[in-house]
Amino acid sequence: MSKESFPLSKVYGLLEPGPVVLVSTAREGRANIMTMSWHTMMEFEPPLVGCVISNGDFTFDSLKASKECVINIPTVELSKQVVDCGNCSGRTVDKFKEFGLTPVAASCVDAPLIDECYANLECRVVDEKMVAKYNLFILEVVVAWIDPGRNIRRRFIILAKARSWLPVRRSIYLPR
Amino acid sequence: MSKESFPLSKVYGLLEPGPVVLVSTAREGRANIMTMSWHTMMEFEPPLVGCVISNGDFTFDSLKASKECVINIPTVELSKQVVDCGNCSGRTVDKFKEFGLTPVAASCVDAPLIDECYANLECRVVDEKMVAKYNLFILEVVVAWIDPGRNIRRRFIILAKARSWLPVRRSIYLPR
Repeated sequence: MSKESFPLSKVYGLLEPGPVVLVSTAREGRANIMTMSWHTMMEFEPPLVGCVISNGDFTFDSLKASKECVINIPTVELSKQVVDCGNCSGRTVDKFKEFGLTPVAASCVDAPLIDECYANLECRVVDEKMVAKYNLFILEVVVAWIDPGRNIRRRFIILAKARSWLPVRRSIYLPR
Repeated sequence: MSKESFPLSKVYGLLEPGPVVLVSTAREGRANIMTMSWHTMMEFEPPLVGCVISNGDFTFDSLKASKECVINIPTVELSKQVVDCGNCSGRTVDKFKEFGLTPVAASCVDAPLIDECYANLECRVVDEKMVAKYNLFILEVVVAWIDPGRNIRRRFIILAKARSWLPVRRSIYLPR
């Protein structure tokens, strides 16, 4: 075997690619957006999603308080906004206004959908047992929306070098 | 908003793309491989990985018993083997032999590395609290290996339509 040892500090870059998503939350009338790539499906139906959100993020506090969010799935046309949303904090920036994204009322949760995204998954927190130790929230998708006009060829955003959220790459992806 | 409702039973297809990995395990001298896409990074260093492995899978029993595995990261050259490994069970097939993959002794765990894969992450189970309810294992990567000869342009495997493991798509991905 001609392999070399790889630093543990860089392992995340091997496992975390896409799809990068935007998590929207609302708390006391204040909506926010976070760029996220640490998530996994956990069950088919009802769909459960596990996601790790740092307790230093503004979204962590909103999600803890409201127990609701929307997972918005962007396509490559939104790459710049996805990067920009990952490089600032909702504590100081109104990301909807700053990055020209449109909040739309959801049907079952208070957090807004991001209209420009290809799909929107309205979610409720159903298990917080792993939040204290791992920042892991388990979400149930209660309603899902999709843009029927873009169902032939969708290009989602795959994260490459990560962490600075800068080197976002593109992937051609055909789920249906 | 011009969106339509999307069936909850298909939500996984929106969130589960890549990288698809191969999990190798060993139990009582019997090595096995499983194709997996439900995983997420949970911590940078030491790297923690959360992964959902169905309790119907042969790998579930091996992992429960041995508390060790290797996450092997394939590139697109291995697409056929990745699909084939996902479409049969280690209960009846020796997947290393059947699909021409080479087991190599790991340094810290009993499970073998898959030599043909670009990277290999030796893992130990560090938390099983969520196994009973969600089939969620939390793994710590204890040693990582990488092929230094393929570090310029790597093409990982991204899952498209999923479940049958048939329509695997390719993504150009440049992590370093």
